[in-house]
Amino acid sequence: LNHNKYFPLDEISLLSYIESVPKLAERLGGNKSHWKLREVGDGNLNYVFIVIGPAGSFVVKQALPYVRCVGESWPLSLDRSYYEANALKEHGLLSPEHVPEVYHFDYQMALTVMHYLEPPHIILRKGLLAGTVYPLLAEHMSDYMAKTLFNTSLVAIPTTIHKSRVAKFSGNVSLCRLTEQVIFSEPYMVAPNNHWTSPHLDEDAKAIRLDDQLKLEIAGLKAKFCESSQALIHGDLHTGSIMVTATSTQVIDPEFAFCGPMGFDVGAFLGNLLLAFFSQDGHASENDREDYKRWILQTVADSWNLFQKKFLALWETTWKDPGDAYPATIYNTANVRELVQKRYISQLFEDTLGFGAAKMIRRIVGIAHVEDLESITDKDVRAVCERRALNVAKLLLKERRNFSSIEQVLSTIQSIK
Amino acid sequence: LNHNKYFPLDEISLLSYIESVPKLAERLGGNKSHWKLREVGDGNLNYVFIVIGPAGSFVVKQALPYVRCVGESWPLSLDRSYYEANALKEHGLLSPEHVPEVYHFDYQMALTVMHYLEPPHIILRKGLLAGTVYPLLAEHMSDYMAKTLFNTSLVAIPTTIHKSRVAKFSGNVSLCRLTEQVIFSEPYMVAPNNHWTSPHLDEDAKAIRLDDQLKLEIAGLKAKFCESSQALIHGDLHTGSIMVTATSTQVIDPEFAFCGPMGFDVGAFLGNLLLAFFSQDGHASENDREDYKRWILQTVADSWNLFQKKFLALWETTWKDPGDAYPATIYNTANVRELVQKRYISQLFEDTLGFGAAKMIRRIVGIAHVEDLESITDKDVRAVCERRALNVAKLLLKERRNFSSIEQVLSTIQSIK
Ligand SMILES: Nc1ncnc2c1ncn2[C@@H]1O[C@H](COP(=O)(O)OP(=O)(O)O)[C@@H](O)[C@H]1O
Ligand SMILES: Nc1ncnc2c1ncn2[C@@H]1O[C@H](COP(=O)(O)OP(=O)(O)O)[C@@H](O)[C@H]1O
Ligand SMILES: [Mg+2]
Ligand SMILES: [Mg+2]
Ligand SMILES: [Mg+2]
Ligand SMILES: [Mg+2]
Ligand SMILES: [Mg+2]
Repeated sequence: LNHNKYFPLDEISLLSYIESVPKLAERLGGNKSHWKLREVGDGNLNYVFIVIGPAGSFVVKQALPYVRCVGESWPLSLDRSYYEANALKEHGLLSPEHVPEVYHFDYQMALTVMHYLEPPHIILRKGLLAGTVYPLLAEHMSDYMAKTLFNTSLVAIPTTIHKSRVAKFSGNVSLCRLTEQVIFSEPYMVAPNNHWTSPHLDEDAKAIRLDDQLKLEIAGLKAKFCESSQALIHGDLHTGSIMVTATSTQVIDPEFAFCGPMGFDVGAFLGNLLLAFFSQDGHASENDREDYKRWILQTVADSWNLFQKKFLALWETTWKDPGDAYPATIYNTANVRELVQKRYISQLFEDTLGFGAAKMIRRIVGIAHVEDLESITDKDVRAVCERRALNVAKLLLKERRNFSSIEQVLSTIQSIK
Repeated sequence: LNHNKYFPLDEISLLSYIESVPKLAERLGGNKSHWKLREVGDGNLNYVFIVIGPAGSFVVKQALPYVRCVGESWPLSLDRSYYEANALKEHGLLSPEHVPEVYHFDYQMALTVMHYLEPPHIILRKGLLAGTVYPLLAEHMSDYMAKTLFNTSLVAIPTTIHKSRVAKFSGNVSLCRLTEQVIFSEPYMVAPNNHWTSPHLDEDAKAIRLDDQLKLEIAGLKAKFCESSQALIHGDLHTGSIMVTATSTQVIDPEFAFCGPMGFDVGAFLGNLLLAFFSQDGHASENDREDYKRWILQTVADSWNLFQKKFLALWETTWKDPGDAYPATIYNTANVRELVQKRYISQLFEDTLGFGAAKMIRRIVGIAHVEDLESITDKDVRAVCERRALNVAKLLLKERRNFSSIEQVLSTIQSIK
């Protein structure tokens, strides 16, 4: 398999492409003169087209052989498209309510056709910016994370399946390297990609580059990211990879998927919720975001608590036919089962806080920032929000082993403010 | 690639096989009427032939499609031969003084031809049984372990090489599963394979099956074995996989090789030395093994201390061109370098004690025992030796986080005796 026949589609050539794939043409209905098509990619990496016909619709996502927001000077493997399509399918089988269905995948063209998440679906990050409450978010995301992570871990599956999945997704190395670079390395060193609200955070950024304890902790997390194949993770589970309505929560964009540590996904989600939390003061008129801030923190707490509850509930049902990690003949009493589960969850909590914190830090002093904070136009205000987020993140990264509940984390956050 | 043309060689067909491979025939010299050949496999799994000709010699190792010591009822993948040959080559490049050279590998036949380690080379386990001192053992084994483990870890190599090696060796899943079963599972449950000196150790074996704390700890080690791809490890580094003379130390039989935790190799070596130590009283006439016991413990201490010293020395020379784990631009002061190195070594020490202990336990109550102990014919004496080893191993497994030097471990061992 190669990409010799790859070419980037434009609005004209995409219509011909669809025409040439009967199942796609049929799904739209009519013929190409009836199909409406719009490029909506707002991400950093790929093209995304919405295509609508008389009978149906879909989204076409095509990878580019470079980082879209940087240009051809930063090449990036087209293979990521293959891993994204595979992750969508595998996670989709495990959590179909929260993953768009894949209709078609073309390896050569690095192209995936999937279910169109129609309006009012919007990117969660935009909803958080607007101050919209999503009452089911914690319920849905905890469901998605528990099902996808538990069921691709050795708690649930045999070593044979695990190792073949590890082998397959080891091929997604370009994307893993990108994460290593922008999350685990650049924020802790002088790098041309780095930027921050300047001069306000100049000293803060410098302090990070001089903080040996922080460098020690980020090394441990990086090693876990590079070496631990705990589960098939999404790999980029920030609030820009989630589309929501009041009743629906959909996870898109798993192009960074590989077998890695679960806490990297859970931490990405919670860390980005915290960035949204810290940005609220920059978007408030008077104190009109206080309720909303409380809702975000409640969602952080609920997401973690529901996640661990559901993870353990799945584990409980699995004792009759477990994966290879915990044979039921060894873990054969309520007491020893509780012991191993507690240890597992507490390690996962520690990882979640660590990775979540690393994700927050990189969004403030690294290459790619978040709209939650970037859209605060008053730099003085923005810097105050960012510094608070940074200080909490540094604390979590260094002290993560000393937190034993998410409520404790939230009290710390509130006491720092 | 497949094994469709595979057939197990006997002494006749092996001669024809060699004849058909010119580079092998040339190495022996003369023709097949001059070649002497002897099957010497004493291992559990494979056939090993020594072949000697007028001009040269070699060893031919061929895998069988089942576990040799059990029979056809326990099938085992022939692919292990491929991973063994690859590990011999990769480790041989890194530590040529301590790994026999591979002359020929035949995937279809699951067959490796390698350098013949001539007499007086014997299996280290036999030498330890005989009470022979190997003054260079610690020096050599620390060298082998430091070079092979350091140089296949992300401290030394980039992510791209690491992930492709992970992918490749993920295929050695049958052998990983075997380890999971016989080391991390069966000793902690009722299993038909298990046996022990009975009735002497009946209660000891039962206590293990009822020890929740032990089961908690073995779960953590098993997870690390299954999920951590820290380095390309040998995977079966007991004293039966090492051949020695007074001046030479050679590591053979890496058919269990995969990308796993370094501590699994270091622990296997040290744990098997400790088994040799605890068996000495069963082989002593009067107290004539006291000096030898001291030498074994000194070798345990030296092996660990030299290993960590050499590992860190390699790390020091690598800062100018490091692997992807610790970029020199982040880890840029003596202080932070020392911090990350200390953390790395202390985690590795903890793993080493844990895996070493697990290896000891399984050799006393699991499927495959060691000659060190099995050859003690007086069951009362043997049981005393085994119980001491078992108690130390249980303690190490549970308390490994509380030991900060190998000397501390050795004092504990001596105080327990
Ligand atoms: N299935 C979909 N339905 C509707 N909109 C989508 C869908 N997939 C992507 N989008 C839109 O396209 C944008 C970019 O998609 P994404 O998969 O995140 O690409 P990138 O990898 O470049 O970040 C999303 O933010 C969203 O607005
Ligand atoms: N290269 C060699 N030179 C000399 N003897 C060897 C060599 N390789 C193996 N042997 C002998 O054959 C025995 C079995 O080899 P080994 O590789 O350990 O097989 P197994 O995988 O079946 O345990 C060893 O214990 C040793 O006695
Ligand atoms: Mg995206
Ligand atoms: Mg993306
Ligand atoms: Mg052997
Ligand atoms: Mg063996
Ligand atoms: Mg072997």
